[in-house]
Amino acid sequence: MAVYKLSALAATLGLTVRGGQGVDPDITGINTLDDAVPGEVSFLANPKYTHKLATTRATAVIVSPEHADQVACALVSASPYQDFGRALALFAVRQGSFTGISDRAFVHPDAQLGQGVTVYPFVYIGPATSVGDGSTLFPGVYVGEHCKIGARCTLYPNAVLMAGTTLGDGCILHPGAVLGAEGFGFTRTPSGIQKIPQTGSVCLGDRVEVGANAAIDRAVLAKTEVGDDTKIDNLVQLGHNVTVGRECFIVSQVGVAGSTHIGNGCTLAGQVGVAGHLHIGDNVTLGPQSGVAQDIPSNTVMGGSPAVPQSTYMRTLALMPRFPELFKRLSKVEKLLEKLVGTKPAD
Amino acid sequence: MAVYKLSALAATLGLTVRGGQGVDPDITGINTLDDAVPGEVSFLANPKYTHKLATTRATAVIVSPEHADQVACALVSASPYQDFGRALALFAVRQGSFTGISDRAFVHPDAQLGQGVTVYPFVYIGPATSVGDGSTLFPGVYVGEHCKIGARCTLYPNAVLMAGTTLGDGCILHPGAVLGAEGFGFTRTPSGIQKIPQTGSVCLGDRVEVGANAAIDRAVLAKTEVGDDTKIDNLVQLGHNVTVGRECFIVSQVGVAGSTHIGNGCTLAGQVGVAGHLHIGDNVTLGPQSGVAQDIPSNTVMGGSPAVPQSTYMRTLALMPRFPELFKRLSKVEKLLEKLVGTKPAD
Amino acid sequence: MAVYKLSALAATLGLTVRGGQGVDPDITGINTLDDAVPGEVSFLANPKYTHKLATTRATAVIVSPEHADQVACALVSASPYQDFGRALALFAVRQGSFTGISDRAFVHPDAQLGQGVTVYPFVYIGPATSVGDGSTLFPGVYVGEHCKIGARCTLYPNAVLMAGTTLGDGCILHPGAVLGAEGFGFTRTPSGIQKIPQTGSVCLGDRVEVGANAAIDRAVLAKTEVGDDTKIDNLVQLGHNVTVGRECFIVSQVGVAGSTHIGNGCTLAGQVGVAGHLHIGDNVTLGPQSGVAQDIPSNTVMGGSPAVPQSTYMRTLALMPRFPELFKRLSKVEKLLEKLVGTKPAD
Repeated sequence: MAVYKLSALAATLGLTVRGGQGVDPDITGINTLDDAVPGEVSFLANPKYTHKLATTRATAVIVSPEHADQVACALVSASPYQDFGRALALFAVRQGSFTGISDRAFVHPDAQLGQGVTVYPFVYIGPATSVGDGSTLFPGVYVGEHCKIGARCTLYPNAVLMAGTTLGDGCILHPGAVLGAEGFGFTRTPSGIQKIPQTGSVCLGDRVEVGANAAIDRAVLAKTEVGDDTKIDNLVQLGHNVTVGRECFIVSQVGVAGSTHIGNGCTLAGQVGVAGHLHIGDNVTLGPQSGVAQDIPSNTVMGGSPAVPQSTYMRTLALMPRFPELFKRLSKVEKLLEKLVGTKPAD
Repeated sequence: MAVYKLSALAATLGLTVRGGQGVDPDITGINTLDDAVPGEVSFLANPKYTHKLATTRATAVIVSPEHADQVACALVSASPYQDFGRALALFAVRQGSFTGISDRAFVHPDAQLGQGVTVYPFVYIGPATSVGDGSTLFPGVYVGEHCKIGARCTLYPNAVLMAGTTLGDGCILHPGAVLGAEGFGFTRTPSGIQKIPQTGSVCLGDRVEVGANAAIDRAVLAKTEVGDDTKIDNLVQLGHNVTVGRECFIVSQVGVAGSTHIGNGCTLAGQVGVAGHLHIGDNVTLGPQSGVAQDIPSNTVMGGSPAVPQSTYMRTLALMPRFPELFKRLSKVEKLLEKLVGTKPAD
Repeated sequence: MAVYKLSALAATLGLTVRGGQGVDPDITGINTLDDAVPGEVSFLANPKYTHKLATTRATAVIVSPEHADQVACALVSASPYQDFGRALALFAVRQGSFTGISDRAFVHPDAQLGQGVTVYPFVYIGPATSVGDGSTLFPGVYVGEHCKIGARCTLYPNAVLMAGTTLGDGCILHPGAVLGAEGFGFTRTPSGIQKIPQTGSVCLGDRVEVGANAAIDRAVLAKTEVGDDTKIDNLVQLGHNVTVGRECFIVSQVGVAGSTHIGNGCTLAGQVGVAGHLHIGDNVTLGPQSGVAQDIPSNTVMGGSPAVPQSTYMRTLALMPRFPELFKRLSKVEKLLEKLVGTKPAD
């Protein structure tokens, strides 16, 4: 476990210590305002928890300048949540308990492993595949032939890379993630269902993460691609020939159908569905459970299923509880009119 | 295969035999009214199948008192479905074909295995981990370091417990379930996406089940928790720091975003989505595909996306087919008014 | 890599060569109009890409007769997409890098393997199980006891067959697919939640595919069944006792609850949810994200949640943006009436 002097921690993070009465205690970890004990640092990122500053037992708290006077010892920060994240990274323990290349793994003689690669027992690595320096493959990982794994990648247990998959540097595949399974390519013919072979591959950029039990299918031809720094959550499905740009968040249980292109900087919230062969621009945000069946221009926020601009969606939602009222009001108008003219307002 | 005399079966279940003409046949299994053959017991739990009592070939049928006269031999029960379940349990064969600790498994020397533990080939157990008495780990299971598995747990093939995960007694993890993968913790900063380390853990109570390929993420700090007797179906996603109470049903493909609390006795139907940082009370029922974006008080039934009280939801659904009618009626009113006053009902 | 003379390729596919100036070049692969290089064949299936015929570098293009004059060398086809698929199959390389029965697999002595079976390292095959001729089991596959796998099946990495599962011939299980996990069978009782044992099995017909990380649960009693030629995409959930007919497409992230029957030739689009105990007829199409809570007759197209006939759904969608207008128009009518009669159109 890491231990920092408070002053050293502040210096490492580039923060100013305020208060603390001149002592320089040991810091052994990071914790919430509620759970922190003496020796731990906490943080205030969400103003709704400000009242907890008064009762926390944390030795110091990462806070913005306006809250610095509310704690006995403050680490003053312009971005408390980001600095909390950086502090946490200093104390985080990397998972795992194995080093080296296990003789219980199967590494094909034609595979190439870089320096400092870790291969746990029960890993399978096929021929003509390379694994970059410092990468780690946990038990149950399968890497097919002709794959290329960059440096410092982590493939957690039971992650699967089918043949021809490429990962950049610093990628993380969470347990059970499947890259390069055959896309869903079939066509109905008069003589039954015909399978379209899926001969392309999957290619991830640098620092891409793929969540637990997520699936990214190989392309029919060419590549299914995910750009640098895009983060994909658990149980997401990306169909064949999907392309996703850089720095996107694809939240849990999203499904994107084949050949759709998603631009840079997009956020797809949980359980979103996107139909195939669409073009989603840059910096698009899709609200939770929304369903997209049309192209979307850049810098748009959409909601609902089928998705409409968020403002339209919110307006429709606001009206929905008033539908019964609408029917009642119309009935009254009709009755009054009937009385006035002595006949129903019918054809 | 188990065999019971009918009288012994009735006694074991606490049921009364009615009919049967004094013979005491061997019972070798439980089956549906349609499929049962002589020697098997069937049951009537759903009144819509009552007519099948006349034709079933079952030797005896578990029925409520009012149906006891409709079969040649009845096992009279106050709760036929529950007693069917108990009867079935008497005949059920436990899955599996292996006992002992396989020498093809990897068990870290610092792991502790209780009495009667079964470890199949290709299991990996990390250091500082304990497995309680009578637990079974199927092939491909990964258990990281610092885990604690209670007694009589079953971890089916390829289930994954990342470091620090805790299971109570009698838990069942179905194939491919992933506990303790890193939560989806990132924040956009001016210099790009920053990863927030996920240093907490996952903790399940007693008799919790987690479905095939479901995912429960580790907490950022502290614990993601699931209470005793809660049952989680296949392909469910629980985000980091989610807490679920006791005796909940979380049905297939539900997603719950980070830091949301779900109380005791709740039922989340299939494909429900719940946003993050919410508080769902006790005994809440969420209808299928509903989407929750607000706190929900206890003892509430909700439906729709976004979810509203079920009665409101049902009322809105009932009105939806009448929208075209609404537009037509309004047009007629407008025309009649125009005729009356000689001008359109405009501004 | 396969190489065909163009004339031989045309003959194999039963297509006519038009143009090409009498030369008979070698063809080494199939590619898109954009990506094809000389030596490759491309295709035009979607008319919106017709303009690309002018610029493609493909040596020949599979086109329908009306486009045959727009390329230097045409392979004239009545069904370009199907013939593209057949051409692609000629060049597709089968995945995998291992043959024979690995001594690092665990094959129970009471299991029976047919001719030409491939068993990778880290496969587990239980007793009383048979694997048909020419089938391949990739690493991490688990096959429980009393299973029956037909001929020429492919079980990709980490696919799981729990006890008693049956596959026909030519089935493909994609990575992480789970067949035969226990269904979600529980009932609330006054003394807590009671588990209903799941003692049935899963039975697939011939040429069924099951997507990556999909789950098909075993039946309570009897069988969960999927008919010949049905294709199931990634992350799909089929509950206990579901039966699906022949030649269905079940697209990614669909969930079907227990005991529902789906007929032949159905298409369930992405993220569809179907409640339990329903009867869906033949040739039913369910639109993306639709939610089904009622029986559906054959030859029906449905959309929305809850699902309604597609025409109704489309009409409702078209009206939705006009709701604000509806409220405004009604208000005007009310005001005008009030002016007319000197009182509000109230009760």
